[in-house]
Amino acid sequence: MKLFVYTSLNEANRSYLRQELPPTITPVFRNELPEIEILNAFQSAEIIMGNPPVSWFEATLPKLLFWQLDSAGFEQYQSVKLNASVANMGDFFARPCAETMVGGILAFYRGIPELVKLQEQKEWQGSHVRPHLDLLGNKKVVILGAGTIGQTCKQMLLGFGCQIKLTARQNSVADIHSFEALLEVLPETDVVINTLPGGADKYVSQTFLQAMKTGSLYASVGRGTTTDESALIAVLQSGKLIGAVLDVTEQEPLPESNPLWEMKNVLLTQHTGGGYRGEEEGKVKQVLVNLARFLKEEEILFQVDLARGY
Amino acid sequence: MKLFVYTSLNEANRSYLRQELPPTITPVFRNELPEIEILNAFQSAEIIMGNPPVSWFEATLPKLLFWQLDSAGFEQYQSVKLNASVANMGDFFARPCAETMVGGILAFYRGIPELVKLQEQKEWQGSHVRPHLDLLGNKKVVILGAGTIGQTCKQMLLGFGCQIKLTARQNSVADIHSFEALLEVLPETDVVINTLPGGADKYVSQTFLQAMKTGSLYASVGRGTTTDESALIAVLQSGKLIGAVLDVTEQEPLPESNPLWEMKNVLLTQHTGGGYRGEEEGKVKQVLVNLARFLKEEEILFQVDLARGY
Repeated sequence: MKLFVYTSLNEANRSYLRQELPPTITPVFRNELPEIEILNAFQSAEIIMGNPPVSWFEATLPKLLFWQLDSAGFEQYQSVKLNASVANMGDFFARPCAETMVGGILAFYRGIPELVKLQEQKEWQGSHVRPHLDLLGNKKVVILGAGTIGQTCKQMLLGFGCQIKLTARQNSVADIHSFEALLEVLPETDVVINTLPGGADKYVSQTFLQAMKTGSLYASVGRGTTTDESALIAVLQSGKLIGAVLDVTEQEPLPESNPLWEMKNVLLTQHTGGGYRGEEEGKVKQVLVNLARFLKEEEILFQVDLARGY
Repeated sequence: MKLFVYTSLNEANRSYLRQELPPTITPVFRNELPEIEILNAFQSAEIIMGNPPVSWFEATLPKLLFWQLDSAGFEQYQSVKLNASVANMGDFFARPCAETMVGGILAFYRGIPELVKLQEQKEWQGSHVRPHLDLLGNKKVVILGAGTIGQTCKQMLLGFGCQIKLTARQNSVADIHSFEALLEVLPETDVVINTLPGGADKYVSQTFLQAMKTGSLYASVGRGTTTDESALIAVLQSGKLIGAVLDVTEQEPLPESNPLWEMKNVLLTQHTGGGYRGEEEGKVKQVLVNLARFLKEEEILFQVDLARGY
């Protein structure tokens, strides 16, 4: 069987994958193939790893048995029709996303973006920065979405003494279950963290943003489409919101003309939220585990020794 | 009685103080006096608030009864001889200092200084930043000092799943009680946070830094004198340490020629650690509370309504 690896992997991780796969599976790496052979390798593979362009799925893929996505979300593939098993990355990105959210919010309150710029200029201006700083401690926080990212954020924020409410329509771990109930809480909320998956287009609407407390902070690691970006820019420009920490934007890369780039009260973390040094290796482990599970169900057995690493 | 206020207070906080003091105490504010009258006002005051230059205490101050410092530390005044009660700021700075430490460390691991610089250039480079990011979660942390700053840092770090050890010679809440025991733990430690008060000159010595794990991070909100800065610069330049988050330096303002300014793996928070928006108001409350306590002991009664604010 052929495993087509669309994911860009470094040499160490390619070796690791080669070494751990059973001899019946041959990996073919996109970044080792000449351009002209790539599409054919994709179309003739029984197994796919990664997130190829949606258009590649317009051709029929009769050999495909198993597809391991590189992401937790898969909205962009909603129109794809396949007769194959598909696995996403599940909770894999929860901790790095939550750390970027809490880190970004703390950085904002503690003036770190400004201090970074001052350091570049070799200007010692700490005493002028101090009076503008704020504390995360005791802040009232609403987290949109009660999935693993939201729950991990909550866990971290508890250590700062924050009061936290999660939202979700049905999930019983959440505290708020409707948009109406949320609108009642927003005027008393200091920080909103958006961890929503795709599907809730512009959930953070003009109505939502107008209901937020004056001087509050918006942070988002949810899908870019879940925020009405024009409305957000307006409440940032008007000074209603004190700032925003955005890991995601409606369009990525963010167009040069977008005003978010130049706003002093906006920190753009450029969709790095899910990333960390061990990310590639973690993805290889994930495909090995999910593939082993799939093949076991199909009675094609192999074992993975994940403790070994490479 | 006269209260000489050396602390620089804005108008709102000066009014607040005036309003809350009993009629028997008249405040005199340094920043309302002509230069020529300042020293005389200081020398003739029964009560002092703030941290005047050490040299001012060379004259005898026969009228002085009570002195409220602006800081937690008071090493610079060790040589001062007074026949008066002195109060420091106690735990007042613990939470903002701890937030700057944890915020700085998270910012470092999540690449925020680099992302801030990229935003200034309007460069969307998130995918190149991602593989260099790291996670605070599960890191092994040693906190030097088991006072309120150290304990507050610990509380915050627990939410990230860190393994934390505090050091203190005698304090029973600490886990490590000697320099020798510390040297044994350092090679397995990912992050060291220095919260030491003055008095432990160059405690973080060359021996200490050499014992640290390769690739570990140093963060300090302790007194600048507790770190051997030249030795620190050497281990940062050699790549042994992955980086440093420094709220304090040996000399402040940091001289322009100091290499720390230009080191990409160093985040200088410029002694903002103790600061936040309510800092001035908090200091006024602190002097009122401590003064009320002192005067009560001296049977000069007045009450402070701290809930009222200004």
